[in-house]
Amino acid sequence: MIKTDILIIGAGPTGLFTVFEAGLLKLKCHLIDALPQPGGQCSEIYPKKPIYDIPAYPEILAGDLTEKLLEQGKQFEPGFTLGERAETIEKQEDGTFIVTTNKGTKHHAPVVAIAGGLGSFEPRKPQISNIQAYEDRGVEYMIKDPELYRDKKVVIAGGGDSALDWSIFLADVAKEVTLVHRRNEFRGALDSVEKVQDLKNQGKINLITPAEVVGLSGEGKLEAVSIKLNSEAEPFDLACDHFVPLFGLSPKLGPMANWGLEIEKNAIKVNNALDYQTNIPGVFAIGDVNTYPGKLKLILCGFHEATLMCQAAYQIINPGKRYVLKYTTVSGIDGFDGSRKEAPKAVVKAIE
Amino acid sequence: MIKTDILIIGAGPTGLFTVFEAGLLKLKCHLIDALPQPGGQCSEIYPKKPIYDIPAYPEILAGDLTEKLLEQGKQFEPGFTLGERAETIEKQEDGTFIVTTNKGTKHHAPVVAIAGGLGSFEPRKPQISNIQAYEDRGVEYMIKDPELYRDKKVVIAGGGDSALDWSIFLADVAKEVTLVHRRNEFRGALDSVEKVQDLKNQGKINLITPAEVVGLSGEGKLEAVSIKLNSEAEPFDLACDHFVPLFGLSPKLGPMANWGLEIEKNAIKVNNALDYQTNIPGVFAIGDVNTYPGKLKLILCGFHEATLMCQAAYQIINPGKRYVLKYTTVSGIDGFDGSRKEAPKAVVKAIE
Repeated sequence: MIKTDILIIGAGPTGLFTVFEAGLLKLKCHLIDALPQPGGQCSEIYPKKPIYDIPAYPEILAGDLTEKLLEQGKQFEPGFTLGERAETIEKQEDGTFIVTTNKGTKHHAPVVAIAGGLGSFEPRKPQISNIQAYEDRGVEYMIKDPELYRDKKVVIAGGGDSALDWSIFLADVAKEVTLVHRRNEFRGALDSVEKVQDLKNQGKINLITPAEVVGLSGEGKLEAVSIKLNSEAEPFDLACDHFVPLFGLSPKLGPMANWGLEIEKNAIKVNNALDYQTNIPGVFAIGDVNTYPGKLKLILCGFHEATLMCQAAYQIINPGKRYVLKYTTVSGIDGFDGSRKEAPKAVVKAIE
Repeated sequence: MIKTDILIIGAGPTGLFTVFEAGLLKLKCHLIDALPQPGGQCSEIYPKKPIYDIPAYPEILAGDLTEKLLEQGKQFEPGFTLGERAETIEKQEDGTFIVTTNKGTKHHAPVVAIAGGLGSFEPRKPQISNIQAYEDRGVEYMIKDPELYRDKKVVIAGGGDSALDWSIFLADVAKEVTLVHRRNEFRGALDSVEKVQDLKNQGKINLITPAEVVGLSGEGKLEAVSIKLNSEAEPFDLACDHFVPLFGLSPKLGPMANWGLEIEKNAIKVNNALDYQTNIPGVFAIGDVNTYPGKLKLILCGFHEATLMCQAAYQIINPGKRYVLKYTTVSGIDGFDGSRKEAPKAVVKAIE
């Protein structure tokens, strides 16, 4: 059982900034995310795209935003349960919560902050009748650990940035990389498209287009995919250890929709006039996952909501204790790792 | 008469970020500030101090924060009325407002956003009976334009960073700089104290301590200050063109307190459940100047409040028009100066 002060569901920008604001109040955080790395959409969907509306950043790449937020919170030593989806929540008699993931990992905390963005990102799956039988037996919809593919034969399907970028990356790791796409045209960053063209010319990536993977076979684990070229009537088999269809992710509120939370327009209703608490006392919703009159789904709004929420969390965890706001510029920051940051002190010194 | 869409009172971080968010909605801003430069406290009081709680900045100097916010808003071409204090507000028959400063500058706008921080910063004045007679005739409480002091004899009083830093700066500009302080000890950044010591040793700054300026004299304009050393019974006269007492600034809500706004604990009450509007429709209060249940006086909260306020301003300025939130990452940004920022486009390109 993982124990923490604030259990954060969702490790996107809002969840990550919560770690910092909670840390200032000496509260510890643990984050659960269905994706294999922190950063949410910013890391998974558009890490190389610039964002222009983060305050005081005229431009920042989404991936760099994630890095900065991780660095800002690091001293408060957050815990992470990654690649697992929060599945159930149970309120205990003492008012605390136990949240269990789809892999059975249990987390115990007095406060739960849902910072789930648009929901957990579920991969779009190809229409292959027996695909479920091979999930985690050679079929993966996301690449969590590239080492899994070392010296293996890998078939990647898709025509966007993920398919291009992972084909490039795995060309140096796997024994054989085959990229299958239903068109000749790929849609992605120019340099990714050109890199795949180069690797294809060098024989480091096999390219099969326009074509589709239409079948899977193997005893107990994947041994071959069946590929149908548009120009041919009959598919052919290609031996492989892994098939990775990268057809994009689509966000789903998922199991949280059954937690008894008030839902409106696929988002969780909160009390924006005070502390972004949901209808379940002790459960808050912050960032893109919540809704209230005038709500804007902007990262900067999530930062504010997280900050106000932490004050309410403090009151739940330290009932009756008064907290006086301290300014970091004046008081500095004491990390849970023993680090201290502070403004250079003024000296009092005679001039003679 | 200066005309604009949103008239912002206060050019601190919240006011500056409003320029950017309004610009995304194609609304133009003009800012009034009593201080001679934008940035509010961040520029005037602690430009060299680090702030640790700006989201995604593990550390940023307050002066640099101002620079970044100015850069972010620049393309939306904000106007500035600096060194003047907003004095009166008059609601017109058509619901728009005219705001007049203490120097008589008039501004006309359909929406007023008060982002006045803790109030306008008023200098603490020394207790010298006839000082008012010399204000703007040789006595200045803030240095707005250092060129005013070129080849003049300047007496600075004070023992903190402002007194130290301006003495250093003016040592190269003025004909003569005299620094008077009631103690031998100065309180400031170590390098500033050391620099003043060096300049004193080189004869570039005259230091008179422990002492006080106790009188002013001159016909129509300042011609001399009277200085009393602690060790002597009688003061002596020192000829000079300027006397600049730098005894710190203290924030005052000032004339705004008489605008008919609902005030609570020296702050302006707003509707935080919707759009941070005050009791006067069309007048909003954002950032440290406002108050509501759970209010935190943090820069990041001002950013959020400014953003939501701009949506309400849009509705006032474009009644009945529907605005659909666009993401900068997707739509890019069109500056009022004809500039365009956007994410590199994905290409659709065949691989052969």
